[in-house]
Amino acid sequence: MAITFTLHGTDGTARAGTLQTPHGAVQTPAFMPVGTQATVKGLTPEMVRDAGAQIILGNTYHLTLRPGDELIRELGGLHRFMNWNGPILTDSGGFQVFSLATQVKITDHGASFKSHIDGSPLELTPERAVEIQQNLGSDIAMVLDECPPADSEPAKMRDAVERSIRWAERCKKHHSKIDQAQFAIVQGGLNLDLRAECARELVAMDFPGYALGGFSVGEAPLAMHAALPACAALLPEHKPRYLMGVGRPQDLLAGVAAGIDMFDCVMPTRNGRNALAFTADGPIRLRNAKHRRDSAPIQSGCSCYCCANYSRAYLHHLFAADEMLGPTLLSLHNVAFYLQLMQNARQAIIEGRFAAFHAACLARWNAAS
Amino acid sequence: MAITFTLHGTDGTARAGTLQTPHGAVQTPAFMPVGTQATVKGLTPEMVRDAGAQIILGNTYHLTLRPGDELIRELGGLHRFMNWNGPILTDSGGFQVFSLATQVKITDHGASFKSHIDGSPLELTPERAVEIQQNLGSDIAMVLDECPPADSEPAKMRDAVERSIRWAERCKKHHSKIDQAQFAIVQGGLNLDLRAECARELVAMDFPGYALGGFSVGEAPLAMHAALPACAALLPEHKPRYLMGVGRPQDLLAGVAAGIDMFDCVMPTRNGRNALAFTADGPIRLRNAKHRRDSAPIQSGCSCYCCANYSRAYLHHLFAADEMLGPTLLSLHNVAFYLQLMQNARQAIIEGRFAAFHAACLARWNAAS
Repeated sequence: MAITFTLHGTDGTARAGTLQTPHGAVQTPAFMPVGTQATVKGLTPEMVRDAGAQIILGNTYHLTLRPGDELIRELGGLHRFMNWNGPILTDSGGFQVFSLATQVKITDHGASFKSHIDGSPLELTPERAVEIQQNLGSDIAMVLDECPPADSEPAKMRDAVERSIRWAERCKKHHSKIDQAQFAIVQGGLNLDLRAECARELVAMDFPGYALGGFSVGEAPLAMHAALPACAALLPEHKPRYLMGVGRPQDLLAGVAAGIDMFDCVMPTRNGRNALAFTADGPIRLRNAKHRRDSAPIQSGCSCYCCANYSRAYLHHLFAADEMLGPTLLSLHNVAFYLQLMQNARQAIIEGRFAAFHAACLARWNAAS
Repeated sequence: MAITFTLHGTDGTARAGTLQTPHGAVQTPAFMPVGTQATVKGLTPEMVRDAGAQIILGNTYHLTLRPGDELIRELGGLHRFMNWNGPILTDSGGFQVFSLATQVKITDHGASFKSHIDGSPLELTPERAVEIQQNLGSDIAMVLDECPPADSEPAKMRDAVERSIRWAERCKKHHSKIDQAQFAIVQGGLNLDLRAECARELVAMDFPGYALGGFSVGEAPLAMHAALPACAALLPEHKPRYLMGVGRPQDLLAGVAAGIDMFDCVMPTRNGRNALAFTADGPIRLRNAKHRRDSAPIQSGCSCYCCANYSRAYLHHLFAADEMLGPTLLSLHNVAFYLQLMQNARQAIIEGRFAAFHAACLARWNAAS
């Protein structure tokens, strides 16, 4: 087994565990900073690690387009290429094909499309998605799935679910890297019958971990929050559960409450580059003139490098002057904020006070907005 | 005395010394990375320090326009604002007024101009240049000077020298910060008689340090190299000598050979942002396709963070993918290269082999070009 997953405690349906991977342990619930193009944008691996990250995510679609998965394999794999020695999870590329590529055509064989970089024609099949991720050498690989928009017709949604099940089977069959675990992805949108059907089929295939895909694809956040407990309950208790591409801090806590163990999202880095900082009192915009003379850090008591050393006034200046260090420092703080939120949630679960922790976080965010 | 300067050894006219400042010691010859807008572009202060920097430069013109020197003073001074606890030298703003501002008008009173950011009318007088730098709280401040282009008419050059002398006197008179040293600036272009006249007047005023301004302003590099020994010889032996805004690695070595102790230049960071790396075998361009599969570091044996951890292939990928980490890593290497060059020069001076070191560096660079 490439990975093992140990549950240390539960609090309601929330879970605290440890995911052991070939590149080290991950305490769950865990947030994975996104390193789309073999770098967490604007940060060195040391900054990511010092912010508290134990695992990061890489994107199969981007990396196979550029610099190419064969090249990364030649150079010793993704860990060595990007100088990150901790665990890496790679997605299957499916979601990006549907959201970034052009002229996408899907058949049972796979997805054909044109590169969003240079328009070159490409194909992603379940087998190719497995091979790319084996070349990248991630600790956890994802099966190729079809991820339709939230407002898709029922027939289209059913087709996507059935195809995702068939593709998962082909991915499992094609997978051969013993120091890499492969997770399956449950689709079905907000249709809980479809989700249950999909989960039942995939659980029967006995993957080492399961993800919920097809959330945060256009539905209302509260609709997702409402669906998460039932969807999480469809997944095996003693295997890790991953909610893909979600989301805001309140969405992560809703996921944790529902029994999710792993999350990834570009929000901390993307918002950081755009001068928005997450805090326990809600987001603040560093470009706002009210921060111009403010000697306080983004968040008092935050132990991240940004808050330990820099004022809001300095960050305001960096963004006003279009200096690279602004996006770097704010991305760092936001990543640290997400990671600290998950660490605090874990501690609350272990101490049996997660519901109170969850309510207190929401009350503080809501009071500020 | 805010600073003391100790000469440890000379080799020909090259010098090895130590400049003691209120924020620590600087071994000379020294290169000062440029932190124009209260940040060395793309790097954290820790990266700059770990690359070997002992002193950095801040730009008066930029900082008084944004965020404002009064604001920086309120927030505890430039060291605290930007989280750099080592020595800082600030220029006087004169060079930037002449090169960046619009509608510049110079009288004996000072320079009036319009901001390059928002067009607002501003004035820089010798007294104001002193006040700004006192507000910034730098360890070393520069007098306001007039820096004409290299191809200026003789009469214009003489006017600039005479005005610079009068302005230096006013700067000295207005300066009151006891933990800040003020350096004078010798102008005169390539006219050695003017340089000598300017130096004689300024040396008589007994400043704690002297700079050569008006080089790298359009003249041929070899003309500068030829003028440097005579110009350096005009300056007091037991005070630090600073060659402003210079230059390429070969220009720094020419300066060291002539007896210069301090340098600053934006080339390491500006070129780093544009994918050009300095090496002992000459510059390389990381965007070049030949680096695509190259597992070697930028320079074997370089101990900088970039070379210790990343391949040319990875850097090529970062620039191809327009990732911020590319400019950061290459700026870091280039700054480390300049700093290492000065450390090696210092060691060679102390060991009495600077001429051989100088010749070997040039031979290796020239062999590669």
